[in-house]
Amino acid sequence: MTLQYTFELLGTFFFAISGALVIRDKHADLFGATFTGFVTAIGGGTLRDMMLGSYPLVWIGDIHFLYAILAGVLVAYMFSNFLVKLPKTFLLFDSLGISFFTILGVEKALSVGVRPEIAAIMGMFTAIMGGVIRDVLTNETPVLFRKEIYATACLAGACLYLVLLNFDLSRNTNLVVSSMLIMILRLLAVKFRLALPGFKR
Amino acid sequence: MTLQYTFELLGTFFFAISGALVIRDKHADLFGATFTGFVTAIGGGTLRDMMLGSYPLVWIGDIHFLYAILAGVLVAYMFSNFLVKLPKTFLLFDSLGISFFTILGVEKALSVGVRPEIAAIMGMFTAIMGGVIRDVLTNETPVLFRKEIYATACLAGACLYLVLLNFDLSRNTNLVVSSMLIMILRLLAVKFRLALPGFKR
Amino acid sequence: MTLQYTFELLGTFFFAISGALVIRDKHADLFGATFTGFVTAIGGGTLRDMMLGSYPLVWIGDIHFLYAILAGVLVAYMFSNFLVKLPKTFLLFDSLGISFFTILGVEKALSVGVRPEIAAIMGMFTAIMGGVIRDVLTNETPVLFRKEIYATACLAGACLYLVLLNFDLSRNTNLVVSSMLIMILRLLAVKFRLALPGFKR
Repeated sequence: MTLQYTFELLGTFFFAISGALVIRDKHADLFGATFTGFVTAIGGGTLRDMMLGSYPLVWIGDIHFLYAILAGVLVAYMFSNFLVKLPKTFLLFDSLGISFFTILGVEKALSVGVRPEIAAIMGMFTAIMGGVIRDVLTNETPVLFRKEIYATACLAGACLYLVLLNFDLSRNTNLVVSSMLIMILRLLAVKFRLALPGFKR
Repeated sequence: MTLQYTFELLGTFFFAISGALVIRDKHADLFGATFTGFVTAIGGGTLRDMMLGSYPLVWIGDIHFLYAILAGVLVAYMFSNFLVKLPKTFLLFDSLGISFFTILGVEKALSVGVRPEIAAIMGMFTAIMGGVIRDVLTNETPVLFRKEIYATACLAGACLYLVLLNFDLSRNTNLVVSSMLIMILRLLAVKFRLALPGFKR
Repeated sequence: MTLQYTFELLGTFFFAISGALVIRDKHADLFGATFTGFVTAIGGGTLRDMMLGSYPLVWIGDIHFLYAILAGVLVAYMFSNFLVKLPKTFLLFDSLGISFFTILGVEKALSVGVRPEIAAIMGMFTAIMGGVIRDVLTNETPVLFRKEIYATACLAGACLYLVLLNFDLSRNTNLVVSSMLIMILRLLAVKFRLALPGFKR
């Protein structure tokens, strides 16, 4: 089991936890929590692969992702009262998750032969669309319309990765450097409430 | 025309009726009713086949499903004042529909070679996602977050079907037994307001 | 560059403008505007091609569509205060857009060998589903449930196109005539507040 694969499963596990916890304040049952955990964890990669026509979907071809999700939901269910007291830890895990998934998404898109611009969009989709679909299903305003710089950080990291591909860097170095940019941008955005400009009126 | 095919068209017809009636209390027109009827009837199977990469989609490859939907919408439109007075009849048809569609969805997924765990999820999706997409489009809280045991009953029936595959039963017997489990669970859940536990706080 | 291709890019450009402007009155940033512009412009064609299993998606295979979208979002952002004062101009461009995209969608569906009834639905989806997905993401009631005759006009034009295929007309003549029907129906519907009947109660 490679390091990357371990990270992928861990990322799926954390996304499932955060997805399941979203349901905590709604009048939903354990199935609802499992469903939102599932959607949050696999939504982005699923949409990416359906848009690319790349089959089988990751979680359909490899059952370990389903187990990682179920484990995440179980942890969320058993320790929810403890976990919700750790917003900073959650922010850190969420930032780690979107950073890593963005770059993996870029690589996946490049591997099926799309242009770099499209790969950047696909990387960003991989990271954020699971949360967007979850928000739509639970009648929340999707995260990308309300948060401080979020999807934009993913796009920036994806672009950095694509630029660095032209230099003599190992793939792992590029993965780490580009992911770090996303995480740093995201954490700075939350700390200093950074946001892109809106429409001037 | 086999018995199964008749049931598939009938199930589509009933889903279209229930989908069209949802729009009755909204300020929507006949097109809106047709659209919600259509989405309710084909949404689950469409999502399943798009996730499996299985083309053509059922309703695209066989035009009779479209006719069954239009017939359902027409019946809903003409007899809506009568139909809304029959909530128990509707519960029965809905339960029959999700029971039958779950098992058909499991079989379809198995036929393209996925693992049993994935097939169970796909069966459940087939039955419920049409209603979920309809609810999202009409800004309702998706049925799976508010109802008494619903999707969980589908999952239970799907699992029973998969277990019984290992025994010396005819396919039709298995189909009937597993569907019956879903219907019984669903009707008991409504009658006794059974729900899974939620998060403990 | 053919005339049709020019129109396709122009239609994409205008859809992106209208999609981006939707976000103007919400507390969203420039990324949110880009996202809604993008979704509005490519949503319908993307859903159509994913349902047909027709890959690569148009905007993934041809990068010019992405550039047309970014140009539209930029124009929307820079001139939003001016553009929102032109509702009639917008209605005209939107009507032109849905008219043209409907017929292109019908042709695309026919080209992969589906039946005329399905092609008509796919044409209508091409025109309206981008706006529907945008509305769902921004928690609005989808346009097709609230407007005067809208999707129905697209369906009517699609049907006319399919009927005229049986006559000795050039493809361009048919395209223009059928698109015109959609535009005229839509403009009349807005002017005279025409709506299909709803449920009688």
